Amino acid sequence: MNIEAYLESKKKIVEEALFKYLPAPGTFPAVIHEAMHYSLAAGGKRLRPILVLAAAEAVGRCDPEVLAPLFCAVEYIHTYSLIHDDLPAMDDDDFRRGKPSCHKAFGEGIAILAGDALLTYAFEVLTYLAPPRGVFPEPLVVQIIQDISHNIGTAGLIGGQVVDLQSEAAPVDLPSLEYIHRHKTGALFKTCILSGARLAGATERELEQLSLYADAFGMAFQIVDDILDVEGDPALLGKPVGSDAKKQKATYPGLVGITAARKRAEDCITAAVQALEPFGEKAEALRQLAIFIGQRKA
Amino acid sequence: MNIEAYLESKKKIVEEALFKYLPAPGTFPAVIHEAMHYSLAAGGKRLRPILVLAAAEAVGRCDPEVLAPLFCAVEYIHTYSLIHDDLPAMDDDDFRRGKPSCHKAFGEGIAILAGDALLTYAFEVLTYLAPPRGVFPEPLVVQIIQDISHNIGTAGLIGGQVVDLQSEAAPVDLPSLEYIHRHKTGALFKTCILSGARLAGATERELEQLSLYADAFGMAFQIVDDILDVEGDPALLGKPVGSDAKKQKATYPGLVGITAARKRAEDCITAAVQALEPFGEKAEALRQLAIFIGQRKA
Repeated sequence: MNIEAYLESKKKIVEEALFKYLPAPGTFPAVIHEAMHYSLAAGGKRLRPILVLAAAEAVGRCDPEVLAPLFCAVEYIHTYSLIHDDLPAMDDDDFRRGKPSCHKAFGEGIAILAGDALLTYAFEVLTYLAPPRGVFPEPLVVQIIQDISHNIGTAGLIGGQVVDLQSEAAPVDLPSLEYIHRHKTGALFKTCILSGARLAGATERELEQLSLYADAFGMAFQIVDDILDVEGDPALLGKPVGSDAKKQKATYPGLVGITAARKRAEDCITAAVQALEPFGEKAEALRQLAIFIGQRKA
Repeated sequence: MNIEAYLESKKKIVEEALFKYLPAPGTFPAVIHEAMHYSLAAGGKRLRPILVLAAAEAVGRCDPEVLAPLFCAVEYIHTYSLIHDDLPAMDDDDFRRGKPSCHKAFGEGIAILAGDALLTYAFEVLTYLAPPRGVFPEPLVVQIIQDISHNIGTAGLIGGQVVDLQSEAAPVDLPSLEYIHRHKTGALFKTCILSGARLAGATERELEQLSLYADAFGMAFQIVDDILDVEGDPALLGKPVGSDAKKQKATYPGLVGITAARKRAEDCITAAVQALEPFGEKAEALRQLAIFIGQRKA
């Protein structure tokens, strides 16, 4: 499997679906829809939607069209979290993926509301998984909504953002940094993988293995993110490097050194790949994705 | 029916349920749960949860306990919208119900996240309407989640907030003001009423009548709100009067004069009461609620 080609083809599928659930940018009141489209279009790798698709493949079924409400919803959620995270009261980032962040382009008030709106649309779109628009039984859809909302709440993504925000006032130790990583980025990855697998009919046993994969994947992803912030290429990243250090934010390399950080990322990737063993060939995309995020340059 | 006693008894039921779905304030990370509890505890009349209960009564069934996930969720949503609306980048209000607003008490970053978290919890808690925790069939729960998310998105509450935010830059005309009122406050009232009725088994015909009631109720509520901002008692309101005028915000009395504004509110209340005719005695609470909000002093 050529993972670069896989990512490219899935990204195309994702981006074709991503805007079809939202009002067109000109819809009244225009500015909010423009802001939502602006931030969604800023792109990135669409890693979370692709994890939905790859996890569904791993347990056997993968019809991207029926999964679209799920993979679009998780990208709306990811984008909402970035918009709010970039705000001056939070991470205060003026740039995101080489473009002015939402509040720089549209003002803080609209950026707050654009984030709120993307989060709200995520839940509306999740209901489209069920009939008449979708094909999945309602009890499963309710379970997916519960799992996602739980993982992006204070026990998950928001909890991670809170501890991250507090870490700017006082430097954190390694357990706190791992808490931030597991929650701020890990929880959404995990619910993407498990929700995709659930819709594809995963067994409890398969969900357990995928849960191990997701934990290791999320941690590796975030450690590599920290490493790239130290020694990445700003042109590839679309943002200046060293921004964590400048904010006196704790990072993995900052706490344990770059060599130990790399080693820990590699161990996580090995653990992720091992967790996929029972799935055989069907999990090749998930396997290659774990290796890919370890080697990524942006 | 003594509406004051009705409101008091329902408020007690609501406030007993309101916190049971949330982590205790001390739960890690403590500050976010403290901020959520702080803003939820700030109180108010709990009008939206009470509308859920009164609408369910109007169509025949009302077991407050099984409706708790719905009436708590709408109060979480209302509270999230107030927290974000009070932010400096939005309405910039330092006080809410006589207490420092969330961002004054906890800082802007935590206030943004507390709003996000309450919105997110609302959707998690709505899933508790379905088994195993709840008693309602999943297709109905999915429909409720869809209706609520739609009404609080850019076609509803958020749409109203956007136009309201823009109205600070340039004074708006009457149609725009009515758009703000219908969306910023009306849409949530409406989904409270219709969702409560749906769970209680309302027919399509009943939902149509309740929809008329909700539109008239919401408009009357907001016009009275505008009037109170001109001539209310700051001690009863828990905030200074004249704050809309100071922000050069358009208000109903500002655009049509106080006499015409009062007349329009009275007409709306008459229309609301008329819409309830087919329900007879069972709609007495909704009827008295419409009259009550016309006469309220806070």
